[in-house]
Amino acid sequence: MQIYADNAATTKMSRTAIDAMLPYLEEIYGNPSSLHSIGQRAKDALMEARQRAASVLGCQAREITFTSGGSEADNQAILTAAAIGAKTGKKHIVSTAFEHHAVLHTLDALKKQGFEITLLDIRENGLITPNQITEAIRPETCLVSVMYANNEIGTIQPIPEIGQICWEKGVLFHTDAVQAFGHLPIHVTEQQIDMLSLSAHKFYGPKGVGLLYCRRGIPLTNVIYGGAQEGGKRAGTENVPGIMGMTAAMEEAAANIERNRRKTVLLRDRLIRELSAIPHSILNGDQEKRLPGNVNFCFEGVDGESLLLMLDQKGIAASSGSACASGSLDPSHVLLALGRPYELALSSLRLTINENNTEEEIDFIAASVSETVDKLRKLSPVWQDLLSGRRDFVTKE
Amino acid sequence: MQIYADNAATTKMSRTAIDAMLPYLEEIYGNPSSLHSIGQRAKDALMEARQRAASVLGCQAREITFTSGGSEADNQAILTAAAIGAKTGKKHIVSTAFEHHAVLHTLDALKKQGFEITLLDIRENGLITPNQITEAIRPETCLVSVMYANNEIGTIQPIPEIGQICWEKGVLFHTDAVQAFGHLPIHVTEQQIDMLSLSAHKFYGPKGVGLLYCRRGIPLTNVIYGGAQEGGKRAGTENVPGIMGMTAAMEEAAANIERNRRKTVLLRDRLIRELSAIPHSILNGDQEKRLPGNVNFCFEGVDGESLLLMLDQKGIAASSGSACASGSLDPSHVLLALGRPYELALSSLRLTINENNTEEEIDFIAASVSETVDKLRKLSPVWQDLLSGRRDFVTKE
Repeated sequence: MQIYADNAATTKMSRTAIDAMLPYLEEIYGNPSSLHSIGQRAKDALMEARQRAASVLGCQAREITFTSGGSEADNQAILTAAAIGAKTGKKHIVSTAFEHHAVLHTLDALKKQGFEITLLDIRENGLITPNQITEAIRPETCLVSVMYANNEIGTIQPIPEIGQICWEKGVLFHTDAVQAFGHLPIHVTEQQIDMLSLSAHKFYGPKGVGLLYCRRGIPLTNVIYGGAQEGGKRAGTENVPGIMGMTAAMEEAAANIERNRRKTVLLRDRLIRELSAIPHSILNGDQEKRLPGNVNFCFEGVDGESLLLMLDQKGIAASSGSACASGSLDPSHVLLALGRPYELALSSLRLTINENNTEEEIDFIAASVSETVDKLRKLSPVWQDLLSGRRDFVTKE
Repeated sequence: MQIYADNAATTKMSRTAIDAMLPYLEEIYGNPSSLHSIGQRAKDALMEARQRAASVLGCQAREITFTSGGSEADNQAILTAAAIGAKTGKKHIVSTAFEHHAVLHTLDALKKQGFEITLLDIRENGLITPNQITEAIRPETCLVSVMYANNEIGTIQPIPEIGQICWEKGVLFHTDAVQAFGHLPIHVTEQQIDMLSLSAHKFYGPKGVGLLYCRRGIPLTNVIYGGAQEGGKRAGTENVPGIMGMTAAMEEAAANIERNRRKTVLLRDRLIRELSAIPHSILNGDQEKRLPGNVNFCFEGVDGESLLLMLDQKGIAASSGSACASGSLDPSHVLLALGRPYELALSSLRLTINENNTEEEIDFIAASVSETVDKLRKLSPVWQDLLSGRRDFVTKE
């Protein structure tokens, strides 16, 4: 059996998205900035794509800037707010400790430029409260940036409530919706979101393309300087095939969101139930306010990386945390932010399933994890220490 | 007849490049940062692509950073040199007045941060001399950035000589080789280039992907912050399909460079000969040190944009200047830098052909241009002024 359960890392492109790209790789190859008809065909496609993307998000076409992906969009949103803040002497930003590195590392860069950053603590369930936002906002706050749903533990933040608070306080609000889009209903206007980042390859679209929604009236700061593309705010010949693939994937995801959610939640809860039966396991993140496909556990006494490599041998593709941070030996910054102790954080396993998985596959995953956790614990000195009482269990049996 | 003569704006992807992408859009969809085997297949492909790209350029794999295109690569090269310069108190940069906007606008942004920028004058033939570089370099110079070949007028700069001077003076040397690659032999080590930018869609590869070569030992500055991809120097899940397409296109271009050059130069010179016969026309750029496919003329008394729109109706796709600056009513900054008067600069036509054009097509282009120039001049008040002596001709008959 071959089971892909790492959809938070990337997804397999849908046939619809691939088919939407092909004509632009093959025949409609013009540069949208060219005035001749070959260029204009590409320009027309681009305009149409912008309109379609805007319709899905509930905004206007001119509020969409196409980027090379979610990271670039996150960078641009934050630099935009920082540039506005710097002009008005507002150099304080509120965010959370469990954001993606595309947000956290951009904030680090701003810190060196004299910005003050408040990273909100998340509670053990991985959720922040609207009240935390209210309390953190100061007169000199220029931006609140809170991830819509977390890439590792799948927790869904109270975005409309945060949008409302920011709107009332007159503070810009950005949300990294890279993991949320396609799984949760998003309407940027109704949810009072000022800026929102997406990445196509997280919802069955192509890699190398994303977008930034930015409410009109907010002057974007360039991340990439050069030509006059994207209203002068994002230089470089537009990736027309990628943009067409992304737009098709957006529409497909939005059209099927409710059906996919229902199906995926049933599978997810079955998997959570089965994995919870493993002794000394603990679910990371909230049980209810959780992405439909996200399952994330710690197994005491187990090395998460060994676990995922052994699952890979059984044909199950999983992750120990975020793909973007892999290669690092450090435990997940998200699990540490939840308050998981260092050792426990290193024992994590993330399974991100989708609507195409079957109950049979879910049961196979659960049996394989259970068997492998058992095997690894037998070899684990940490586990021996736990059993003998030389080290204390964090979890209950 | 349908003739695409705007290859400097973008190219039609080669079948080889498309075929190299497809498996990565369809089956090999993993995230290269994932540890499981689906991710590792993508990672292996990426490593192989980096090695192949390095072989083509004459450098090491670790000296290649994949980007979203030429503009991002230009931005990153310049910001890298600026960051190094800022640390050592060297805040002077030498470049030229005819660089691409991805360079010029990044330099503008640095000017606001206290950098001093020297933009070298180009002579009427569009070439700078090594001597100009020598004279412009100061003890506080941190970077020389000179385009390998110009996107509008096709002039080829003395890159190895400039590389040698920069090496001797201990100044970093970047070249935007977006228009040169595939047409001119490039070997970054032999030519003493420290940083070099490429864009795949200019050499029959896909849009939305490029690369920055950066000599090892030079610490890159991020343009996009986030995950640990590309050695931590370019965040965001790698565009694996795009990178595979670009690498295939690089190898194909490099393998056929001499054959294509010979064929294209014959066609180009035929077209230049035929267009030179139009009265009061003038070739922009150097006759010898010129990209194989580049033809750029001014026709006195003609509006360049009208000319290209009328050629489009005859099935000829051309440009009045750079696609990246189109939409603007200003004349080309490159032609102004050559010393062309404002009115004359507005009369330009760029035809960028390739090895697949035929002599028949060239003759059809020439006849169409000649006929259209005639027609436009009959309607042109400027032309009437020229004929009546109320305005002076710049060109000879």
